[in-house]
Amino acid sequence: MEYKTASLSLHKKYKGKLATRVVTPVKTKRDMSLVYTPGVGEVSKEIAKNSNRVFDYTIKAHTVAIVSDGSAVLGLGNIGPKAAIPVMEGKAVLFKTFANLDAFPICLDTQDPDEIIKTVKYISPVFGAINLEDISAPRCFDIEKSLQNIGVPVMHDDQHGTAVVVLAGIINAVKVAKKDIKKTKVVILGAGAAGNAIAKIFVNKVQDILVLDRQGILSIKRNDLDIHKKELAKLTNKNNITGKLSDAIKGADIFVGVSGPNLISHNDIQLMADRAIVFALANPIPEILPENAKKAGAFIVATGRSDFPNQVNNSLAFPGIFKGALDAKVKRITMDMKIAAAHALSSMVKNPTPNKIIPGPFDVGVVEKVSSAVYKVAIKRSTV
Amino acid sequence: MEYKTASLSLHKKYKGKLATRVVTPVKTKRDMSLVYTPGVGEVSKEIAKNSNRVFDYTIKAHTVAIVSDGSAVLGLGNIGPKAAIPVMEGKAVLFKTFANLDAFPICLDTQDPDEIIKTVKYISPVFGAINLEDISAPRCFDIEKSLQNIGVPVMHDDQHGTAVVVLAGIINAVKVAKKDIKKTKVVILGAGAAGNAIAKIFVNKVQDILVLDRQGILSIKRNDLDIHKKELAKLTNKNNITGKLSDAIKGADIFVGVSGPNLISHNDIQLMADRAIVFALANPIPEILPENAKKAGAFIVATGRSDFPNQVNNSLAFPGIFKGALDAKVKRITMDMKIAAAHALSSMVKNPTPNKIIPGPFDVGVVEKVSSAVYKVAIKRSTV
Repeated sequence: MEYKTASLSLHKKYKGKLATRVVTPVKTKRDMSLVYTPGVGEVSKEIAKNSNRVFDYTIKAHTVAIVSDGSAVLGLGNIGPKAAIPVMEGKAVLFKTFANLDAFPICLDTQDPDEIIKTVKYISPVFGAINLEDISAPRCFDIEKSLQNIGVPVMHDDQHGTAVVVLAGIINAVKVAKKDIKKTKVVILGAGAAGNAIAKIFVNKVQDILVLDRQGILSIKRNDLDIHKKELAKLTNKNNITGKLSDAIKGADIFVGVSGPNLISHNDIQLMADRAIVFALANPIPEILPENAKKAGAFIVATGRSDFPNQVNNSLAFPGIFKGALDAKVKRITMDMKIAAAHALSSMVKNPTPNKIIPGPFDVGVVEKVSSAVYKVAIKRSTV
Repeated sequence: MEYKTASLSLHKKYKGKLATRVVTPVKTKRDMSLVYTPGVGEVSKEIAKNSNRVFDYTIKAHTVAIVSDGSAVLGLGNIGPKAAIPVMEGKAVLFKTFANLDAFPICLDTQDPDEIIKTVKYISPVFGAINLEDISAPRCFDIEKSLQNIGVPVMHDDQHGTAVVVLAGIINAVKVAKKDIKKTKVVILGAGAAGNAIAKIFVNKVQDILVLDRQGILSIKRNDLDIHKKELAKLTNKNNITGKLSDAIKGADIFVGVSGPNLISHNDIQLMADRAIVFALANPIPEILPENAKKAGAFIVATGRSDFPNQVNNSLAFPGIFKGALDAKVKRITMDMKIAAAHALSSMVKNPTPNKIIPGPFDVGVVEKVSSAVYKVAIKRSTV
């Protein structure tokens, strides 16, 4: 793949991708007296008197920590904190490019959940929000949950960024397929970080959901489930069905794969309902290639890849979600904010078609639309 | 003071002083494929194979964490991590402006030394060096010491930055005063962060040193000293002298004050040796004002202030020290590097006079001179 050498030499040439920039004038001695001592002392005193002023006078207003322990980086697995840096820097590049937010990579030399939780809490004063990234499941669930009360919003993007974009795509897909989302049957293959969050956002819209891990349908009848999968089994699968993918997918309107390459077959797709919607999001090799899914009868197909139509890509969601959250100075990113973000995103496609259910990452106005939707929900919540 | 309102409105206008900057091209889809997925995966794999490559491919090569717990900020005391942010941002501005290093403020929501030590270790993968800042004594000593083996250099600037600039100034002062530094008698008033480090760098050059805290001369005969002051007493005060400042300063060639306002009198200065050198560094009000010290007979006077001659200012040292350390990828900043930095700094003043013993912070070439001196020592050490 020609990307490889090009990417290596680019990273070497620039020594990474990120730098700091001084935004205030620093030409004269007087300039320095204002940005540093003695002038800065007055600013510190103001914040010491009223800690909320930190949003007026410091980078906290526009700065996000991208925190990873390197335990589940891209498709590379547990490669550790140093090898994770290029990815987290890349994420900071996306934050800056798409939302003009100043994000900084924090790669942690510990994979102990309790230590991660403490460290994020300790470093939180400088940051307006925390983006957890590439932390393996099920550890990511407890870590994110424990960090919901530290005073700044903490969101694990592999979970919620993905879930928001999937929901946005599905909202348009059911429109095109003339299905009532409430009455659809949804099958989610994969019960990790993404699968978990997709199921949890979908229960707000859909009644009939089945989630599967490698062993089959999540059901309270199974006794091999950890607490997170047990919770998902309770939340979905109302009829306590057991079985494999071929059992689950029979008559399904929507299939969402966040699992692995080639895990769904021609025959599986054929078992689905008319005008089937297939989101095959495993990267870089999807659960089924779009052409094969179409041959088997799928009406709409989405993947995680940029070389096929309907790319489901986190970068459509997280810049706007974090921007809205920072603008409104929220302490938490709530379910209603995420759902609002999904609707904002789907509304960016004026006339959805089978090959255009989601905006592209470079489409103008995406971040503004998403961030203002999140902002509006946040403001409403705080005034009610 | 007119700085106050000007500084407040400057900070409000720009929402702090720092931002991130993307240094690589990000105009096209292909650009994005190189800085983020899929291209970035190859970079991560290279680092996973050989962790030293992290210096070739990431911001670690040029990035410094400025870590504070807000326990001893400027002259403001223990104002906490949020109120410390403007100062740490200001320090990042100095790093960028003087040394083109990318520094990022990390203000910690804990003042427990063990938690601070763990947190700094955990966040170290992204950073090429750690600047500890405004952490109160004696906590700062154990924290810095415990962090010497984390793989990247950790330096508490309030200690060593100050000590290096003081030594640089003294090297030129004794030249002007025609004194042999080895044979001088030095009195250091203040046994906190700065006093401790000044004493420790001076023992490499001077035999006769007395350090004083508020209770008097540090001596092993005293039983009210903590382990850090005990260590200093052993390291200095060879004759186990006890007494007050007026006892210590009798016949002293050099007085260094890192204590508080107006703590040294006309009479004290009069007790000093001929051609007395007085560094009155308490900020903003020195131990004695330069005009009063001169009236009492001082030959050379330095302060921490920019409105008097001979400003002793950390910003002369830390940008070059960290740059040299990063360029050489050292794991520790050693005493010989600090001494080399001091000599480099003093050599910047070609013809020292009583009113010009130290370069100014905006003098051209200071950072290069200091960093290359540190670099040379580092390279020599690693090849021996």
